[in-house]
Amino acid sequence: MAQRIAVIPGDGIGKEVMPEGLRALEAAAARFGIELELEHFDFASCDYYAEHGKMLPDDWFETLKDFDAIFYGAVGWPATVPDHISLWGSLLQFRRRFDQYVNLRPCRLLPGIKSPLAGREPGDIDFYVVRENTEGEYSSVGGKMFEGTDREVVIQETVMTRHGTDRVLKFAYELAASRPRKKLTSATKSNGIAITMPWWDERVAAMGKHYPDVAVDKFHIDILTANFVLHPDWFDVVVGSNLFGDILSDLGPACTGTIGVAPSANINPEGSFPSLFEPVHGSAPDIAGKGIANPIGQIWSGAMMLEHLGHPEASDAIIAAFEAVLAEGDTTLLTPDVGGKGNTESLGRAIAARL
Amino acid sequence: MAQRIAVIPGDGIGKEVMPEGLRALEAAAARFGIELELEHFDFASCDYYAEHGKMLPDDWFETLKDFDAIFYGAVGWPATVPDHISLWGSLLQFRRRFDQYVNLRPCRLLPGIKSPLAGREPGDIDFYVVRENTEGEYSSVGGKMFEGTDREVVIQETVMTRHGTDRVLKFAYELAASRPRKKLTSATKSNGIAITMPWWDERVAAMGKHYPDVAVDKFHIDILTANFVLHPDWFDVVVGSNLFGDILSDLGPACTGTIGVAPSANINPEGSFPSLFEPVHGSAPDIAGKGIANPIGQIWSGAMMLEHLGHPEASDAIIAAFEAVLAEGDTTLLTPDVGGKGNTESLGRAIAARL
Ligand SMILES: CC(C)[C@H](C(=O)O)[C@@H](O)C(=O)O
Ligand SMILES: CC(C)[C@H](C(=O)O)[C@@H](O)C(=O)O
Repeated sequence: MAQRIAVIPGDGIGKEVMPEGLRALEAAAARFGIELELEHFDFASCDYYAEHGKMLPDDWFETLKDFDAIFYGAVGWPATVPDHISLWGSLLQFRRRFDQYVNLRPCRLLPGIKSPLAGREPGDIDFYVVRENTEGEYSSVGGKMFEGTDREVVIQETVMTRHGTDRVLKFAYELAASRPRKKLTSATKSNGIAITMPWWDERVAAMGKHYPDVAVDKFHIDILTANFVLHPDWFDVVVGSNLFGDILSDLGPACTGTIGVAPSANINPEGSFPSLFEPVHGSAPDIAGKGIANPIGQIWSGAMMLEHLGHPEASDAIIAAFEAVLAEGDTTLLTPDVGGKGNTESLGRAIAARL
Repeated sequence: MAQRIAVIPGDGIGKEVMPEGLRALEAAAARFGIELELEHFDFASCDYYAEHGKMLPDDWFETLKDFDAIFYGAVGWPATVPDHISLWGSLLQFRRRFDQYVNLRPCRLLPGIKSPLAGREPGDIDFYVVRENTEGEYSSVGGKMFEGTDREVVIQETVMTRHGTDRVLKFAYELAASRPRKKLTSATKSNGIAITMPWWDERVAAMGKHYPDVAVDKFHIDILTANFVLHPDWFDVVVGSNLFGDILSDLGPACTGTIGVAPSANINPEGSFPSLFEPVHGSAPDIAGKGIANPIGQIWSGAMMLEHLGHPEASDAIIAAFEAVLAEGDTTLLTPDVGGKGNTESLGRAIAARL
């Protein structure tokens, strides 16, 4: 039976990289005899907002909930819609309502891409960031008092639950246990953030009891970001709260040369709702419309989607395809962010051709 | 009249770098005819805690409040006192009770220090992080519900005030206006943290009206950390909340090669209470006791203290002294973190000898 994918290009370069994401996906599906049924949606974009005054139609949940996966581009167009409105009206809704509580993001230095870090070669940087994806610092709970006056006080609550924390920690420990190094690093800030973070540390330690083979350490988020730059080879699996995971999963890919290639899986491990796959990069208004965005973040996200859907060979083939094109280093094909003179389409076609 | 300095070595390598910080300070004071009166305190350390069951004596506020400045080493010894207890019982108290609402941290690539970033030379990285230092994400407001059960919910409040935000933004704008590039970057996360951060953006824009000459931009904290690595040359003055400033002022120094040299000034600009000067690095239990910690963070903090006390020439002389020693690169003198075989004392003595 065909697996059903909801395709949502979104905004900005999302609309430019999605065709290349689909090109690779369809090539891999054809090669491995996978039946995919793609359905395209224009909502969850600021264009849709301009027309309808909202990011999503009222029946979005019903419309999407039975898909096997969602393939998303990027969302946000701050020139017309404030980011907190566009994001809370789309991506952050999906993550919460579909209970995609794991955000999984590989940070891997690829062949042919120069790291901004001196002397780092492919193989030196290869870890995962596991990010809590539904609660924590991302909240709209709180408010203002004495608004608009000199006495103004603004309060925002971070909300963590044992349910929400333990399940993502479990995922992170399982992932660490499945890897050769069996190492888990927890991002904390228990020296400054005095209630949630010491408690987070306790939950990390408690879950660790079930995984005696996994070596655990923890760093405060400030020095952890420093260590990403100074010692990226220290890390195997890094787990963090919603905010800390967000930061680390942009910084990690930056250390591997470009945000443009980094993929992200928003996973509901139980499969009760569709998982969502999207590049780490955003809509990038600064380069949108030029056709030069790197499509590998989208393509790699497609590979993660295929793996999630039970097709690891097809997933591996996509990864092998873009690694080969990068390793070859034909600058007429590559996008400018990785030192090329090509564009989104030339790179996307070269990758699909390998499949 | 002598200026009175409270000297608090604290824990771990704090006790090792402080003597070198004082050596440089006293050498500069002698050379420029500055009268300093140093008073030493053993509190605000985990040793003190072990003896007294608290980090500070009851009369600490009275004892310290009339000093002209506080010269602090580092605090924290997690093996015996949990970090949130040692820090909230000392450094974070000082910052709040003495209303040191600006935390100012230069990030500058120094001669003779190799940046972990490929191809970056001294001059390429030279910016300030201005951090809000008294409120925001660092709070002990909140609590737990259904504690110890599967339904456990943990809540932590971020509290920002217009008073607290505007004054640090003003400091940051003034600093940017005083520098040749006149550029201010604001760290935000208004797309995810839905109440405080959009409001922070508004305050940045409102304050900007008074500084038409300053060019302002903003980045979400995730991509901002990435840009510290990819484009450190973009930045001139970066302003952030307590947490974001904390992260950026560890990451920035890491991009300049080592946390060990980075200084930090906790400033009460009105002078109603003493300001506090301390290295960015912590007590570093992993290397404490070996005598190999880099003393430059402490020494440079001393230079910032002299500048704050109205002695810019003495401050510049200290900076010139350690820059000269670093540029010379005599590895028998330098500490291991900057590629040497020397120790804390050899490097400290070499710097003092230049003064
Ligand atoms: C020790 C810790 C509480 C402190 C902070 O986070 O403020 C430190 O990291 C710093 O940057 O001064
Ligand atoms: C766009 C934004 C809300 C989002 C996030 O912070 O989660 C993005 O940065 C990400 O990492 O997916």
